[in-house]
Amino acid sequence: MRHRTPKATVPPDPRLERWEAGAELPLLAASLVFLAGYALHVLVPEGNRFVRETGLVAVGVTWLMFLVDYAVRYRLSRQRPIRFVRTHWLDTVVLVLPLLRPLRVVKVYTAIRRRGSRARLGLHARVITYAGLSALLLGFAGALNVYQAERHAPDATIRTFGDSVWWVAATLTTVGYGDVVPVTVRGRTVAVGMMIGGLALLGAVTGSFSSWLLSVFAQEGDDEAPGE
Amino acid sequence: MRHRTPKATVPPDPRLERWEAGAELPLLAASLVFLAGYALHVLVPEGNRFVRETGLVAVGVTWLMFLVDYAVRYRLSRQRPIRFVRTHWLDTVVLVLPLLRPLRVVKVYTAIRRRGSRARLGLHARVITYAGLSALLLGFAGALNVYQAERHAPDATIRTFGDSVWWVAATLTTVGYGDVVPVTVRGRTVAVGMMIGGLALLGAVTGSFSSWLLSVFAQEGDDEAPGE
Amino acid sequence: MRHRTPKATVPPDPRLERWEAGAELPLLAASLVFLAGYALHVLVPEGNRFVRETGLVAVGVTWLMFLVDYAVRYRLSRQRPIRFVRTHWLDTVVLVLPLLRPLRVVKVYTAIRRRGSRARLGLHARVITYAGLSALLLGFAGALNVYQAERHAPDATIRTFGDSVWWVAATLTTVGYGDVVPVTVRGRTVAVGMMIGGLALLGAVTGSFSSWLLSVFAQEGDDEAPGE
Amino acid sequence: MRHRTPKATVPPDPRLERWEAGAELPLLAASLVFLAGYALHVLVPEGNRFVRETGLVAVGVTWLMFLVDYAVRYRLSRQRPIRFVRTHWLDTVVLVLPLLRPLRVVKVYTAIRRRGSRARLGLHARVITYAGLSALLLGFAGALNVYQAERHAPDATIRTFGDSVWWVAATLTTVGYGDVVPVTVRGRTVAVGMMIGGLALLGAVTGSFSSWLLSVFAQEGDDEAPGE
Repeated sequence: MRHRTPKATVPPDPRLERWEAGAELPLLAASLVFLAGYALHVLVPEGNRFVRETGLVAVGVTWLMFLVDYAVRYRLSRQRPIRFVRTHWLDTVVLVLPLLRPLRVVKVYTAIRRRGSRARLGLHARVITYAGLSALLLGFAGALNVYQAERHAPDATIRTFGDSVWWVAATLTTVGYGDVVPVTVRGRTVAVGMMIGGLALLGAVTGSFSSWLLSVFAQEGDDEAPGE
Repeated sequence: MRHRTPKATVPPDPRLERWEAGAELPLLAASLVFLAGYALHVLVPEGNRFVRETGLVAVGVTWLMFLVDYAVRYRLSRQRPIRFVRTHWLDTVVLVLPLLRPLRVVKVYTAIRRRGSRARLGLHARVITYAGLSALLLGFAGALNVYQAERHAPDATIRTFGDSVWWVAATLTTVGYGDVVPVTVRGRTVAVGMMIGGLALLGAVTGSFSSWLLSVFAQEGDDEAPGE
Repeated sequence: MRHRTPKATVPPDPRLERWEAGAELPLLAASLVFLAGYALHVLVPEGNRFVRETGLVAVGVTWLMFLVDYAVRYRLSRQRPIRFVRTHWLDTVVLVLPLLRPLRVVKVYTAIRRRGSRARLGLHARVITYAGLSALLLGFAGALNVYQAERHAPDATIRTFGDSVWWVAATLTTVGYGDVVPVTVRGRTVAVGMMIGGLALLGAVTGSFSSWLLSVFAQEGDDEAPGE
Repeated sequence: MRHRTPKATVPPDPRLERWEAGAELPLLAASLVFLAGYALHVLVPEGNRFVRETGLVAVGVTWLMFLVDYAVRYRLSRQRPIRFVRTHWLDTVVLVLPLLRPLRVVKVYTAIRRRGSRARLGLHARVITYAGLSALLLGFAGALNVYQAERHAPDATIRTFGDSVWWVAATLTTVGYGDVVPVTVRGRTVAVGMMIGGLALLGAVTGSFSSWLLSVFAQEGDDEAPGE
């Protein structure tokens, strides 16, 4: 998802690459702080107002960081706004819906891990890791959001965070028991996003696993062929 | 889905191609008017009779346009009726069940967009766009139809259009919570169609996304290989 | 699923091939009569005893034909019993559970149709046709069987044949609303078979459709390449 | 899943290979005894205390065997603990959660069967067999575990072992009716594991079946090509 250089006449500012390299790690940290702050805000009991508001502040501050990063990159890219939004559509979506940020977090995490580790993972293992981790983080963010939307609804069936996690697992795997389901408009809107995103991510996991299993068995067959 | 020239002895009328080229855009507009008219008819409260009937008129007029187009193309093709129906089975289905028309709308839309845009989408992106847009439009048409069928049923669980949309999302993704389900024969018949169509379309989305992710990661691996 | 010639020392009787060729059409007819008879027996109201029993007789007679065919083929194959069962496992399963016979019916139907039709279907279309028709026939047989098992159960939710068809559609597509579900042991046993079989068959349909869509779009891209 | 020789400076003890070859069959037997003992412990009525405790003893003794095998292999591998755990992650997971052992059982079973049988299964058939058997055994273990967790919960819907098996089938195939669902934290935790594992395994079955069907039909087309 590295953005291909557009065929614009104006080349991007050379400082863009430096900014992107330097901002990677702070933004990764900010993403995790964002998620942690949001989790604090949602999960800490209402009595403990100080912690809840601290979480909210963390969410706000980190979101400002995302905004600054986006603005700086827009400036340094020297592109027209519409073109920038189009070539950076994932960044734009993630700025507006910061709970989708895990999609980028994992990317960065993968980059870092790869740099440090000697034993490279195979292709299928990397796709499974990426899609699985994204699904995990998106599922956590979605469970928080749906829980926040549902817990005060009068006829809600999702009443605890545990219910919400249980619902997320059944939704992402498309099992969909329906014993607990969102009933509010906001909860259902998030849910539809989770269904589609989860379907795609878990489809990738399943497909890769299937291909990997096939390749393992195919290899095994080859290994034995001469020995027979 | 362009229809291959059949091996009939009589060649199609040369005016056929001109007609098809010229009718493409008006039919696209008609399809959208059809869907909008149907939406108006279903969603506007019963009190506002004038708007509802206007919607119905739009549905009727545009459907007549579809019929005329079908008849003209049959005439110009110089084929026997059975052969024409067989080589144009999608057009025939879409004529009888005009709510399936989105399958063609998206096709046309793709054709237009492709002509104008420089940056061609990759193969997987095109399949995802086509299947995703088809699923969206079919889902919208299905939600309208099921809502119309269910809203006056005595023991219905789908009572608002919001419920219907929620049900469609859960159905197309095969999550299937079952908290709201159609209970009328007509609603269930539409539902079975949605299950099958949605399964195929979303299977295409999932499969393409999975392939695309694999190709992105495979490319990444190649890019790094020399630099390591 | 044509059975490869086993590496047995005794070659099969030359009359085997003649038998198989000659029995194909009568067995196809018998399979359809079997299914129709079973449908009559299950769906005709209990008052109309004569029709119900006629259905049962048709079931019995056709099943005897299957048995004779199996025995003759075993004889002519000149194989030991265990080997014959192993190389003809599908035939054996279908003999014991004749409601699975659609798996063979469609096969024959495909063979016949292919012989007669000039316009050969593409690979993906053939797989979709085969798997889709099998799913349809198996679904019908399963709906009959589950309806028969459930209709007199005290706490059943499947009370009409329509409910049963609706349940089958939701099961084969793995949507699984759960608004109507089997509650008897027999109904649930059939249901588990339908889940697995349906999953595999519809997985084949979905996978083939996805591949076909990809190939259509890939071809389209190629067609345009020179014209750009 | 044979562990590739790590690039460590110290080679593994030559006795390691002998141990692994010799321990394969006893461990396979132990795995089956483990599962049988656990089934006895869970399924035998509470009154029959002797049999239940015998089952528990079998579980404990066999688990000790797994521990000894793990320890011996760690010793003979001459690897540092962290590296050993990383290169044998599947063995480690299976040691901690012995109900996942079927994943290994089937592996061994496949190895044995392959040695003895002349007629080699095709690639797709092997993957389907492996994934299908794993799903079956994992499903059985999961049904036992969830039944144990749920049966005394006050508002449980899974009350009999039959319910539990029914729930497992609906979960592994992602049908997810939701008529019976776990309500305890332990039951739901196992359920989430089953969803993910089952999704992957059945995805492999479905994908392989789809590929196999495509290859059968493709071959058929080739066979006929010259004869036309």
